[in-house]
Amino acid sequence: MARILTGIQATGIPHLGNLLGAIRPAISQANDPDNESFLFIADMHSLTQIKDANTLRDNTYAVAAAWLAFGLDARRSVFYRQSDVPQAAELAWYLNCFFPVSRLELAHSFKDKTANLKDGAASVNTGLFTYPMLMSADILLYDAEFVPVGKDQMQHLEFTRDVAKRLHNAMQTEVFVLPEAVTQESVMLVPGLDGEKMSKSRDNTLNIFDDPKALKKRINKEIETDATALEDPKDPDSNPVTRLYALVAGDAAAAHMADQLRAGGYGWGHAKKALLEAVVDGFSTERDEYNRWMADRGALDAELHAGAQRAAEVAHGVLNRVRVALGYGAL
Amino acid sequence: MARILTGIQATGIPHLGNLLGAIRPAISQANDPDNESFLFIADMHSLTQIKDANTLRDNTYAVAAAWLAFGLDARRSVFYRQSDVPQAAELAWYLNCFFPVSRLELAHSFKDKTANLKDGAASVNTGLFTYPMLMSADILLYDAEFVPVGKDQMQHLEFTRDVAKRLHNAMQTEVFVLPEAVTQESVMLVPGLDGEKMSKSRDNTLNIFDDPKALKKRINKEIETDATALEDPKDPDSNPVTRLYALVAGDAAAAHMADQLRAGGYGWGHAKKALLEAVVDGFSTERDEYNRWMADRGALDAELHAGAQRAAEVAHGVLNRVRVALGYGAL
Repeated sequence: MARILTGIQATGIPHLGNLLGAIRPAISQANDPDNESFLFIADMHSLTQIKDANTLRDNTYAVAAAWLAFGLDARRSVFYRQSDVPQAAELAWYLNCFFPVSRLELAHSFKDKTANLKDGAASVNTGLFTYPMLMSADILLYDAEFVPVGKDQMQHLEFTRDVAKRLHNAMQTEVFVLPEAVTQESVMLVPGLDGEKMSKSRDNTLNIFDDPKALKKRINKEIETDATALEDPKDPDSNPVTRLYALVAGDAAAAHMADQLRAGGYGWGHAKKALLEAVVDGFSTERDEYNRWMADRGALDAELHAGAQRAAEVAHGVLNRVRVALGYGAL
Repeated sequence: MARILTGIQATGIPHLGNLLGAIRPAISQANDPDNESFLFIADMHSLTQIKDANTLRDNTYAVAAAWLAFGLDARRSVFYRQSDVPQAAELAWYLNCFFPVSRLELAHSFKDKTANLKDGAASVNTGLFTYPMLMSADILLYDAEFVPVGKDQMQHLEFTRDVAKRLHNAMQTEVFVLPEAVTQESVMLVPGLDGEKMSKSRDNTLNIFDDPKALKKRINKEIETDATALEDPKDPDSNPVTRLYALVAGDAAAAHMADQLRAGGYGWGHAKKALLEAVVDGFSTERDEYNRWMADRGALDAELHAGAQRAAEVAHGVLNRVRVALGYGAL
């Protein structure tokens, strides 16, 4: 039984790219009885970027509702909101005391963020600078053995192992489980409505939880199609609609669509309509579930609190191990 | 009723300079029924420097025992160990997210510390870098109205007010009480055994909790005296022994000693002996109390835990106010 920890960014309503590329595989892993999965919504990290209480709160609920709607079994895994177990911040402080400032300055995430700012690092907040230590605390606090990471997060796991070892060396005692990175072998690439990778920052996303009317408008407006006449043959690969259709309706249905496009007499409008129907029908259960959760935040809170309670029990034990090693009393 | 918060560094057994210059005045302020005093031993800050569990723990106990031995009324004030109310670390994380890295880089304490290191800031740990935010959290977490500060800590209080205002501005709501600095008007200057200011780093301290034998050895060995013959007149101001004697035995007794030295027939050995007796007898109650506390750490823990419980109640309320303002749930 391997303990796997997954941090979930709370950036708002997950779009199709998040759902197919990251969330569905993570849920299938979490529901696997061979694993013991801890999944947390990283809303304390959100504060480095979001300074609006409603947005921060709503983002968290939307993410929680999406994971549950896509079938996360919250009884089997430990699913919680980071801010409900704020002990990670305490551990982060301890870790801070063992990690050189100069190493943090080398963090890719920090360098990327400061590079995009007119005044460089000057206006970057200290949370953005030190958040690899909070992330390390998130992981070490639960004795996580494995952490699924994308390429851009590999360094964070290196930092986590590094700071754990530094503390072990300094205190001459091993209090942490050293986590290992699990790199996703093949991440599903979900094209956006413009054909580029689907991402919030490009504003090319599809929100499958939207109602059919909004979905129709979005698909028709944002997927650009050329003016080839209806009866002419078309290149299926010249437009993201077929790739999106394949992801939603399956390869067989997509092959059929491609044949129709190549044959002529089948327009991009037909293809868009087919995509719309596939999205509306294909995710109707998830959409209903999502809306049900979002309409009952008390139920969402109850679900997340139950997870937090189980997480807190583990955190309590690990944190006391650390506290005693450092010279503090167990709490 | 003004709420005053005092952070106490846990640097080991307080010496005569600490006791007379800082601790006794603070205790008299804390015991004043017109004030509501929160006093905490900053053992989470200690971790930025101390990586030894026993030293860290013993330092805290020694400091707690000294304050109690010198008459701190732990029923009247809220006297606690920082690590027993680790919620300050949670608040520090939130504050981090509102405070620019570039401002922290300007902290005197950080610049001083890095200047003394061969490799500059490279080996400085992140705790040392970010500790003004933990200190701000220590203050803001208790709605402290006044914070007694030395000149070297003025900047920390400016940071505290600064970060509180930044959060107020960003969130468009006032959650913190803005603390005011209280600068000590005249701090008693306690000379060390070498005549310079008494300080641990100069190794010129007098530990009044030592047993008489150790005190005698220390005074005789460390206070250097010239070889003026016993019968010759001596300049009382040429040696710190008279100044120390004044602080311990009072001005009248010291004036008498000065007269005897000037008159001749009274040696430095006599003066040292008088100082020793004044220290041994003058602090016998405090020494007994200190030793009683140090021999019963369970009693010390009980005292500190009781304080922590009262502190935690206040912290809980303030932290929930902050959490709700930021978009988290109350805990």
